[in-house]
Amino acid sequence: MTITPPALSVFEALESEVRSYCRGWPAVFDRAQGSHMYDEDGHTYLDFFAGAGSLNYGHNNPVLKRALIDYIERDGVTHGLDMSTTAKRAFLESFQNNVLRPRDLPYKVMFPGPTGTNAVESALKLARKVKGREAIVSFTNAFHGMSLGSLAVTGNAFKRAGAGIPLVHGTPMPFDNYFDGTVPDFLWFERLLEDQGSGLNKPAAVIVETVQGEGGINVARPEWLRALAELCERQDMLLIVDDIQMGCGRTGAFFSFEEAGITPDIVTVSKSISGYGLPMSLCLFKPELDIWEPGEHNGTFRGNNPAFVTAAATLDTYWSDGQMEKQTLARGEQVEQALRAICDEEQSGAHFRGRGLVWGLEFEDKDRATAVCRRAFELGLLVESSGPESEVVKLLPALTISPEELDEGLRTLARAVRETA
Amino acid sequence: MTITPPALSVFEALESEVRSYCRGWPAVFDRAQGSHMYDEDGHTYLDFFAGAGSLNYGHNNPVLKRALIDYIERDGVTHGLDMSTTAKRAFLESFQNNVLRPRDLPYKVMFPGPTGTNAVESALKLARKVKGREAIVSFTNAFHGMSLGSLAVTGNAFKRAGAGIPLVHGTPMPFDNYFDGTVPDFLWFERLLEDQGSGLNKPAAVIVETVQGEGGINVARPEWLRALAELCERQDMLLIVDDIQMGCGRTGAFFSFEEAGITPDIVTVSKSISGYGLPMSLCLFKPELDIWEPGEHNGTFRGNNPAFVTAAATLDTYWSDGQMEKQTLARGEQVEQALRAICDEEQSGAHFRGRGLVWGLEFEDKDRATAVCRRAFELGLLVESSGPESEVVKLLPALTISPEELDEGLRTLARAVRETA
Amino acid sequence: MTITPPALSVFEALESEVRSYCRGWPAVFDRAQGSHMYDEDGHTYLDFFAGAGSLNYGHNNPVLKRALIDYIERDGVTHGLDMSTTAKRAFLESFQNNVLRPRDLPYKVMFPGPTGTNAVESALKLARKVKGREAIVSFTNAFHGMSLGSLAVTGNAFKRAGAGIPLVHGTPMPFDNYFDGTVPDFLWFERLLEDQGSGLNKPAAVIVETVQGEGGINVARPEWLRALAELCERQDMLLIVDDIQMGCGRTGAFFSFEEAGITPDIVTVSKSISGYGLPMSLCLFKPELDIWEPGEHNGTFRGNNPAFVTAAATLDTYWSDGQMEKQTLARGEQVEQALRAICDEEQSGAHFRGRGLVWGLEFEDKDRATAVCRRAFELGLLVESSGPESEVVKLLPALTISPEELDEGLRTLARAVRETA
Amino acid sequence: MTITPPALSVFEALESEVRSYCRGWPAVFDRAQGSHMYDEDGHTYLDFFAGAGSLNYGHNNPVLKRALIDYIERDGVTHGLDMSTTAKRAFLESFQNNVLRPRDLPYKVMFPGPTGTNAVESALKLARKVKGREAIVSFTNAFHGMSLGSLAVTGNAFKRAGAGIPLVHGTPMPFDNYFDGTVPDFLWFERLLEDQGSGLNKPAAVIVETVQGEGGINVARPEWLRALAELCERQDMLLIVDDIQMGCGRTGAFFSFEEAGITPDIVTVSKSISGYGLPMSLCLFKPELDIWEPGEHNGTFRGNNPAFVTAAATLDTYWSDGQMEKQTLARGEQVEQALRAICDEEQSGAHFRGRGLVWGLEFEDKDRATAVCRRAFELGLLVESSGPESEVVKLLPALTISPEELDEGLRTLARAVRETA
Repeated sequence: MTITPPALSVFEALESEVRSYCRGWPAVFDRAQGSHMYDEDGHTYLDFFAGAGSLNYGHNNPVLKRALIDYIERDGVTHGLDMSTTAKRAFLESFQNNVLRPRDLPYKVMFPGPTGTNAVESALKLARKVKGREAIVSFTNAFHGMSLGSLAVTGNAFKRAGAGIPLVHGTPMPFDNYFDGTVPDFLWFERLLEDQGSGLNKPAAVIVETVQGEGGINVARPEWLRALAELCERQDMLLIVDDIQMGCGRTGAFFSFEEAGITPDIVTVSKSISGYGLPMSLCLFKPELDIWEPGEHNGTFRGNNPAFVTAAATLDTYWSDGQMEKQTLARGEQVEQALRAICDEEQSGAHFRGRGLVWGLEFEDKDRATAVCRRAFELGLLVESSGPESEVVKLLPALTISPEELDEGLRTLARAVRETA
Repeated sequence: MTITPPALSVFEALESEVRSYCRGWPAVFDRAQGSHMYDEDGHTYLDFFAGAGSLNYGHNNPVLKRALIDYIERDGVTHGLDMSTTAKRAFLESFQNNVLRPRDLPYKVMFPGPTGTNAVESALKLARKVKGREAIVSFTNAFHGMSLGSLAVTGNAFKRAGAGIPLVHGTPMPFDNYFDGTVPDFLWFERLLEDQGSGLNKPAAVIVETVQGEGGINVARPEWLRALAELCERQDMLLIVDDIQMGCGRTGAFFSFEEAGITPDIVTVSKSISGYGLPMSLCLFKPELDIWEPGEHNGTFRGNNPAFVTAAATLDTYWSDGQMEKQTLARGEQVEQALRAICDEEQSGAHFRGRGLVWGLEFEDKDRATAVCRRAFELGLLVESSGPESEVVKLLPALTISPEELDEGLRTLARAVRETA
Repeated sequence: MTITPPALSVFEALESEVRSYCRGWPAVFDRAQGSHMYDEDGHTYLDFFAGAGSLNYGHNNPVLKRALIDYIERDGVTHGLDMSTTAKRAFLESFQNNVLRPRDLPYKVMFPGPTGTNAVESALKLARKVKGREAIVSFTNAFHGMSLGSLAVTGNAFKRAGAGIPLVHGTPMPFDNYFDGTVPDFLWFERLLEDQGSGLNKPAAVIVETVQGEGGINVARPEWLRALAELCERQDMLLIVDDIQMGCGRTGAFFSFEEAGITPDIVTVSKSISGYGLPMSLCLFKPELDIWEPGEHNGTFRGNNPAFVTAAATLDTYWSDGQMEKQTLARGEQVEQALRAICDEEQSGAHFRGRGLVWGLEFEDKDRATAVCRRAFELGLLVESSGPESEVVKLLPALTISPEELDEGLRTLARAVRETA
Repeated sequence: MTITPPALSVFEALESEVRSYCRGWPAVFDRAQGSHMYDEDGHTYLDFFAGAGSLNYGHNNPVLKRALIDYIERDGVTHGLDMSTTAKRAFLESFQNNVLRPRDLPYKVMFPGPTGTNAVESALKLARKVKGREAIVSFTNAFHGMSLGSLAVTGNAFKRAGAGIPLVHGTPMPFDNYFDGTVPDFLWFERLLEDQGSGLNKPAAVIVETVQGEGGINVARPEWLRALAELCERQDMLLIVDDIQMGCGRTGAFFSFEEAGITPDIVTVSKSISGYGLPMSLCLFKPELDIWEPGEHNGTFRGNNPAFVTAAATLDTYWSDGQMEKQTLARGEQVEQALRAICDEEQSGAHFRGRGLVWGLEFEDKDRATAVCRRAFELGLLVESSGPESEVVKLLPALTISPEELDEGLRTLARAVRETA
């Protein structure tokens, strides 16, 4: 496939220099369906990025599309602030029946605004209010969002510098396996908590991703997560799992923390919760934490009702039984085999890691991942790098991808790896 | 009309106590069209709130609805991160042709995430980066959002307390007419800036709303805004106009600052920019400020393409000429006359103020506004209070409301005022 | 008198560039007695600066000197941390008998470390602990010290910039007469406090100097101080009077706030409290505020016992009756007359203000004050400038200065003014 | 010896509850000489605390006393702000000749105010100014002072809570041997610095004590200090050694870092620098860091000239050759032997550690150290506990203590240990 760089004039002339993905993928996309995107010049791309995890059910999934169009057609409420609506009720009931009740999760549901960072901001606010303490512990290479509260618990130095003010009240701790297993888990963290002379401000909460997506696909072991949950309980800190990228089935189960058998105090959900790529997020928390006053946190778009409609349809369609989880794990094995083959073949050093349908392929040559992604794009595969130095190729295919599509993409990836060696 | 409180069970059982509007308007809304909302029990409500200013063109506006459904039907890209898409291009071109070029505005366009607070966060980040200073000046009774950066420049003490950390780097200055004209404009602010011993950290920027919506419909005079712009230039501070609620034609012109003849350095736009109530926001700034690095600020839903589609349709439909502005001003006069009559009639003291189609009716008895809104709801009119003590009835009808609808609503309002005397 | 610049080699070679007074007074001082200092080249200087208010009883006052040498000779405890010592007891008893009891002041006494900024830091800590709030209100052109807590409530932009971090939790309000009487007192401050939407974080305390020394000899009127005290009580804020420079009789009465008839919640005292120029400070507060835990604030030199000895001798000698106060007021009148004459004579604009024995002479030509001080030095008079632009000549003679010495100095000052016209 | 609790009435009635040492040592001290203190009831105490390290040359050392009285007698300048004085020159010359030049140390000398915390505040300010960054790294169980800047880098949770505001811009790292040697030095710290995704704000400087006194007599190994210095250089961070308690010969050499062979960028000195227990402190830094503007940091008592006089006499008397260092090391061996004997004898677990003449005796039973100190006091020995849980008996005898006095004190200590078993 030959890509002719499109005439990007209005983008270059008018859009801010902050734009990013459009630089690595210099096409003008027009349509999308399932695991494929189509640009205006007729090229087709297989999507292994899935809207950074926002499109777990593929682009414009027909089941959800039908529900969405029906709702729009019949003039269902579009913008509802936090009014009660029939669409919100349907979502809440579906969420309760398909997600919370079967997992015996006791959570209250907050609609904090439609983006992930809104959810994180509300989670941090609530934790601080409940505990009456300011400090939050996050982990190395964490990513939680770009507004100031979320950015303060995000690791990336380049993003942090963008704040323009010193980011405070957050302290990083080593994520699982940060020292390749040479240091016992939580050695440093627990010692700081127990030592009254350590200088660590006692945290209100710990915020963690079970798999760090932006941070380079770093996978926390279930036993590490369990130990973290126990540490939080022992030390009177709330445990916040940021499941924005890894929830909604990305790792197999609906919530990524299910495998570890823990029940976080607070959970943030966004990205794929609407199923259709529409802005929506949730902040879930144990009922005893629901000490919010009415309106203490608000936001104009926290009632994005079309998203509630597709979200309910998604849950009813994909989460009323265990099929989706099984299929994701099966697809994950397919990815794992392919990555193993790539790494076995690769001369100069490559490693892979992942869970469910989130996988990372890391190269010892740090610039390689970017080269692989670039070549993959030329070959018609959308795949992105992640990690503090963009050293990891990140695989986030839709959960609904077919085995054949997955195979095709993995073969293209292997080729891109070979051709950039 | 008799309202039977609906069975709110799932809302009460599952939704967080933070929910707010649903308490004052205890109905379950199902459909909406133009200036009317319909609940599931068959009641009809005339909407004088318009999604807190997000529905300037009414609910489910048929022109936009057609464009939206067409786009969804043809599998246009829904979730596009910040990739270039045909929908984004169409929006950018429409925004340039209908908005920027006719007004001779030089702005670059940033998509900072789809909510207002994302836009404000990006504006504050950029101002701090450009000027290398942390401090921001905001105004008494300002409202800019709920994430930590925006909250720090928001006035409301109750919302601020929700942060759970001390909010710093912001200093409030008196908004226009804060002292009823007894103190010269900017006396205090300018003196602090000029006095090297004042103790004010030199601000990177000033952020202002031309009309404070949440703050109680406080209207800044054009001459005050001009003096503020001159002060900013003289003192090397950037001027940020937060036009999230007052932009998109709410005050008549597309941008609320046009009447004053100023060109802010940075402008935030959200709420009605998509026209259809879909989450979308913009941060506009002068090209010389566009010093962002690629990806320095990002966000999952900054490419909400269905919103781009309705936004472009909105601009093409309503902003290709001066009709909308004229109509809004005419409707505004209709409101003004009705409010004058109410205030003339009111015994115990009421005042009104506003511009375009944003009006406030303030009662000397501070509890009255809430009572009026409650009674109005019973009478089938959706209207909300604002101001630090909820002492102002806020009128935000759709710009597309018909004179008859407007008249009906104003009569209902008058009745609610009378019946709560 | 001709001054030969001394060989400053070791000062220039070894001492940091931060050194300051030695630049304006390029002499190497050797001895001092009463109101005179003597340099190593045999020149004599009349001292109108008195150690920035630390030498209210003159240099090496013979009464105090006798007590000090006796104490050292007999091996009295020198360094006592916060152990109980006979010297501390003698001071406490003298302070109670001569200062607190006659004024009916209920204060507990804290020894927070021997410098003014230690006292201010402890006062701010205590206020925050008592009220459970972080914010402090200070005034334009305030000076409270150089450690981070004190610096955050200090006005001078140059000093603030030295912090190297953004100074937060402090908000400046206009000092008395900041707008030349055109704005009612506390209009802005009280409005911010009463308006729940103002954006001002509710302060734990207000810190004020009754006369701003470093700020340019700005004198608060008694009625302004009373109104401030009432505002603090009404709004549940603690009132801290920083009496470090203006206490110990500088304005006439022992405490500078006595004239206003107020009883601050917290008072900081330092500079002249030891009487002999030895480092010592106090933090005084109402007994109900004494919620410190043992050792919650500490410091190595908070038990500087030689200073306790001279402090007790000072109080016994000068403050057992009202003589000192009367004498200071009389000397003040002498200064006032001379300054009036200077201002009457001065063509290009000069103003004076002051109380007791602290006076300021301000020139409309901002560079003039520095020139006057330089010329005065050449003429054998030590006098310094103050104010945000060093535009005020500050007169702080010892309270023990004789009428003749005072007259001589005032005549020298007048000559310096004339000769710099 | 039987101690009758003295009538503490004025202390209890008037002095704040914050008082601390006077509670553990309920005597009223009157006189002191060498290693002995005398209370007003005629009891004699052998002092193993030495003013928390401020009296390295004993109480009222006769050589220094003579110099001090001579200076006072001849009316030498007492309070000199930062004017050049003959006393300051003599100190600077003595410091250069006896301390800096023989050690080939290039430092400029700053007089930042007379207490340790003033010195630390100025060191932190300078580091931030030089590097343009806010963050500082300190170590677990560090103690640097009580004003807000210093407190933010101090470990003790109880002291930190006293701030009343969240302490920010500081991050603790593990001090030497924090994990009993099981974790490689700086593993965590260096990894955070190298990882661009770690979330650590890049520090301007690292502040460290070579032996943590308040923290429990934790001794850093020379190789650890060298590795720290190298890390700082490699990572472009300034190294600040806080030598306030451990400098002035406490560990043998004049500076405690000499043994490690490192040259810190900034050094803070206080406590025993005056030799006589008079308030004085220094901030030393490499000449290229001397970017202070004149007066950018100041303070009323930074020119405590009597302290300069005793300081110069101290240096001339004790530091013109290597005798003092040798003697300290010899006395240290005497202490070490005695502590080894105590620990050998102790059944329930005791450990000791130290360098020069600073030693700690830690008990596994955490309450024991306090009991030992109490019993020692009854037996006429002044000794204090330290460590985050006051679990360590801290030995800080004067460097001038005689072998016989030292032996007597160590025997009393052994008895107190036995009698509290």
